Amino acid sequence: MSSRTLNRSDLVVLAGSAIAVVLAGVTRYTHAGAVLPFVVAAVAVALLASLVGRCVDQLGDRFGAGATGVLQSALGNLPELFIGYFALRSGLLDVVRAAVIGSILANILLVLGLAFVVGGVRHGTLEFSSHRARTTTVLLFLATAALVLPSVASYVHTPAEPHERQLSLIVSVVLLVLFVLSLPASLRRGHGGSTPASATATDGAPAASVGAGSTEAEPTEAARWPVWLAVGLLAASGVLAALVSDWFVYALQPAIGALHMSQAFAGLIVVAIAGNAVENFVGIQLAARGQADYAVSVIVNSPLQIALVLAPVLVLLSLTTATALTLVFAPMLVIAVVVSVLAVSLIVYDGESNWLEGATLIALYMIIATVFWWG
Amino acid sequence: MSSRTLNRSDLVVLAGSAIAVVLAGVTRYTHAGAVLPFVVAAVAVALLASLVGRCVDQLGDRFGAGATGVLQSALGNLPELFIGYFALRSGLLDVVRAAVIGSILANILLVLGLAFVVGGVRHGTLEFSSHRARTTTVLLFLATAALVLPSVASYVHTPAEPHERQLSLIVSVVLLVLFVLSLPASLRRGHGGSTPASATATDGAPAASVGAGSTEAEPTEAARWPVWLAVGLLAASGVLAALVSDWFVYALQPAIGALHMSQAFAGLIVVAIAGNAVENFVGIQLAARGQADYAVSVIVNSPLQIALVLAPVLVLLSLTTATALTLVFAPMLVIAVVVSVLAVSLIVYDGESNWLEGATLIALYMIIATVFWWG
Amino acid sequence: MSSRTLNRSDLVVLAGSAIAVVLAGVTRYTHAGAVLPFVVAAVAVALLASLVGRCVDQLGDRFGAGATGVLQSALGNLPELFIGYFALRSGLLDVVRAAVIGSILANILLVLGLAFVVGGVRHGTLEFSSHRARTTTVLLFLATAALVLPSVASYVHTPAEPHERQLSLIVSVVLLVLFVLSLPASLRRGHGGSTPASATATDGAPAASVGAGSTEAEPTEAARWPVWLAVGLLAASGVLAALVSDWFVYALQPAIGALHMSQAFAGLIVVAIAGNAVENFVGIQLAARGQADYAVSVIVNSPLQIALVLAPVLVLLSLTTATALTLVFAPMLVIAVVVSVLAVSLIVYDGESNWLEGATLIALYMIIATVFWWG
Repeated sequence: MSSRTLNRSDLVVLAGSAIAVVLAGVTRYTHAGAVLPFVVAAVAVALLASLVGRCVDQLGDRFGAGATGVLQSALGNLPELFIGYFALRSGLLDVVRAAVIGSILANILLVLGLAFVVGGVRHGTLEFSSHRARTTTVLLFLATAALVLPSVASYVHTPAEPHERQLSLIVSVVLLVLFVLSLPASLRRGHGGSTPASATATDGAPAASVGAGSTEAEPTEAARWPVWLAVGLLAASGVLAALVSDWFVYALQPAIGALHMSQAFAGLIVVAIAGNAVENFVGIQLAARGQADYAVSVIVNSPLQIALVLAPVLVLLSLTTATALTLVFAPMLVIAVVVSVLAVSLIVYDGESNWLEGATLIALYMIIATVFWWG
Repeated sequence: MSSRTLNRSDLVVLAGSAIAVVLAGVTRYTHAGAVLPFVVAAVAVALLASLVGRCVDQLGDRFGAGATGVLQSALGNLPELFIGYFALRSGLLDVVRAAVIGSILANILLVLGLAFVVGGVRHGTLEFSSHRARTTTVLLFLATAALVLPSVASYVHTPAEPHERQLSLIVSVVLLVLFVLSLPASLRRGHGGSTPASATATDGAPAASVGAGSTEAEPTEAARWPVWLAVGLLAASGVLAALVSDWFVYALQPAIGALHMSQAFAGLIVVAIAGNAVENFVGIQLAARGQADYAVSVIVNSPLQIALVLAPVLVLLSLTTATALTLVFAPMLVIAVVVSVLAVSLIVYDGESNWLEGATLIALYMIIATVFWWG
Repeated sequence: MSSRTLNRSDLVVLAGSAIAVVLAGVTRYTHAGAVLPFVVAAVAVALLASLVGRCVDQLGDRFGAGATGVLQSALGNLPELFIGYFALRSGLLDVVRAAVIGSILANILLVLGLAFVVGGVRHGTLEFSSHRARTTTVLLFLATAALVLPSVASYVHTPAEPHERQLSLIVSVVLLVLFVLSLPASLRRGHGGSTPASATATDGAPAASVGAGSTEAEPTEAARWPVWLAVGLLAASGVLAALVSDWFVYALQPAIGALHMSQAFAGLIVVAIAGNAVENFVGIQLAARGQADYAVSVIVNSPLQIALVLAPVLVLLSLTTATALTLVFAPMLVIAVVVSVLAVSLIVYDGESNWLEGATLIALYMIIATVFWWG
């Protein structure tokens, strides 16, 4: 592994992942208390999520932007999927539901807010005028609306209430069909030959901003990995992510008890940040470099994938577990996500942002976290 | 009637209407089961709605775009009005309320979604940049907000709750006053002399997008009908629409029972599509021809007329019937319409659409329909 | 006081204030019935609010637009603050909460609606394309979302419900921190040296539309007051505002009883209009002169100050009174403000308005007032 194929940041993530995984394994099988195994496993999950993203980018780099987008959509939320699955198997339904919503909120409030603060402090007012971000936002609003309709139907006691499981399955299938429909356009987008994904762009091409058409030239500063390296690392980090996710969920319940958290808070904040933070750090980096257009696209695309793929797949996977996951979320989760999606829509449609807007987004995130802290 | 005055599509609608009306009459007064009379009457209503629209366009064509707009606003929802009135007289309150919301949803989710799919598949990304669609959307949001405020006041048990009937009457009068206020500007818009209405544009000039100013040149490919023909056909189709609406409502209850539908589903989906589908087919045609701007204006104007005219008139008409219609809708109806209006606002403000957005709108419509299917 | 320093409109307000204050004092301490003292005090409060605004503008005029903005933010809602504080001390919690929401509604529905009607009738379609109004609107949406989250957490019975007081305090501190963060940028905006504030622009520079960057040249037609005059008048009108606010609150309860108003209606409509109407009359004047961009900025900035400063300060002040003010508003208030903020967002993002949109905003205000009339 010469420094020509793996750059410095790659090596840091790789080494960090290795160390964190080993530590997570050690704390898992020794008497390390209730909190330490959990923290170490969370760090390991976050680093592996970043590593999976880098491998996907490298592979996509070979096959064009379209392929990157499709791979990203399919694999980008792999660690969250593992955590969700193991949590379902452990019957931690409230954690899973809160984590789905929390992953959306972490992206559009915390990550986007940090990107605006960092970008705004460095570059003043950020402008992002491309249609891609708007199109992604429209789809995010529509997918979120579909995602929360079963909840609403349940709250208002429509006659559909006793059918919440069937309704959740139908909505999940519809969302996945929409995702599949978006794939051809995602693939086509890459034909131009330009490769928007770079070694640091772990959440590279906004796959589902389908048909937006405007192909933006992105800088490709990355050193290329050999294919064998990318595939091998992807397989290894995928398997390790599954393993560590299991440990993470195993350590979750004692930690919740020791830290006096509610299940909802653990899912909404802790699991969501572990699964998204490092992975989406790239969005903040892009904003710091002044590439506001690309940063917003990347950050807003991530929650879209969660609504279109992660949530429906977890509902379908729950058919194989003892506890059925439905899309009936706690009302506060639904209100938080609807308000946040509306807020991000206004911001994206404005086409401008400054650090105060970023600070306000982060403030909103903290207030929502506070509400769930009292479990 | 030479082929110079009535074009092919006119003749198809005319012949179809005649046949459907006769069949509807036959099945009405013979033993034709519970479903057949209903289906035939629904088809007849839909075709007559289209015919009324064509007559209005032809008349408006003589007197300018402004006159068309005013006529459209006044007569465009005539068949829905007849159905609503007869359903009120039969005490089918839930059907009427669901049909009002359903007519809005059918336009902004189903018809707009189909327009985007058809237009997107043919022309790629559709652009619609005129201010007219935005202005109509703003008014649609405001009118919808006014329309649902009595419902909300009832849900949250404000002290206004026992006054829901008075509140509904006040809101209805306010909405009608706003409609009347919009008429002068609608009339003025036509002064330029250009005639945006064509023989196929059954829902021609977006009357209430008042003051938007930007007059777009629309192709006028239509053969003109003589005035006597337009007036005569309008009178005939109006009278027949009243007659067939009566049969339709008469057949509705047995059909609901036979098909195991809920009243809400029948109103929201079946009545709404019968009253709007064929009539608003023109929006889809315009999108197919790549006239995205005009298509969006036409499609978004229709639900505005429903909120500003149809709903208030039905409330006032119900003063003459045994059952009082209030504007207190079932919560799920209110949430569905608010979410849908917000979605269409984001789409119109984006100024761009593709077939995937269209597919997502249709998916949302199907999910809402599913929720109401479990009656 | 020559007419060179105080122009005619200044003199009218000054004389009016003096007369109204004297009359308010007389009716306060004589047997003047239940309604007259209230009406006179309301007029006096409104005129003093206008006078405070004029003094602030004059002072800001000396120190640049930034200073005006900061002074405005700090002092602009002074009379509302006094009324709120005295109402809190009298235990009129429902009045205070309704007045906070009502002040937001009065600005974005009534004042903005009147501005559009007046401007639209005179100038046709109004255009306001600057980014400043959009940025203010985004912040208004975010601040409103934060403001209503404690209410929502209470309605849906999250485990945070019993902590509503702590949650309200946290949200208040967060909002005030955001306000403080916005001050440096507000100050910086003035560096260009241009003075957007004029003698009539009582709510001059939109302080919190921070970082929006686009500095618009505003006409400065005003005669300058000497500093001693501005400071002296500010001190005097501030002290008198405190005094008259006390009388106003003292007269409020008998008037509520005599006029058969609910506490909510008194706060939402009467107190809100007394505290905002005259003060924000300038927005309507600007629209009448065709300065739509500036008018919209001024009008939308006012509710932002209410959410960022007035509401949190009242919550903190209530720590010193017997009754604790929390941010748990009645559901109808929350729904009204959320719908209104969304409506104004759509309008501002459209960048165009006409008198029909203005009429619709006013209609929405009247419907909301009607709902609260039945107390």
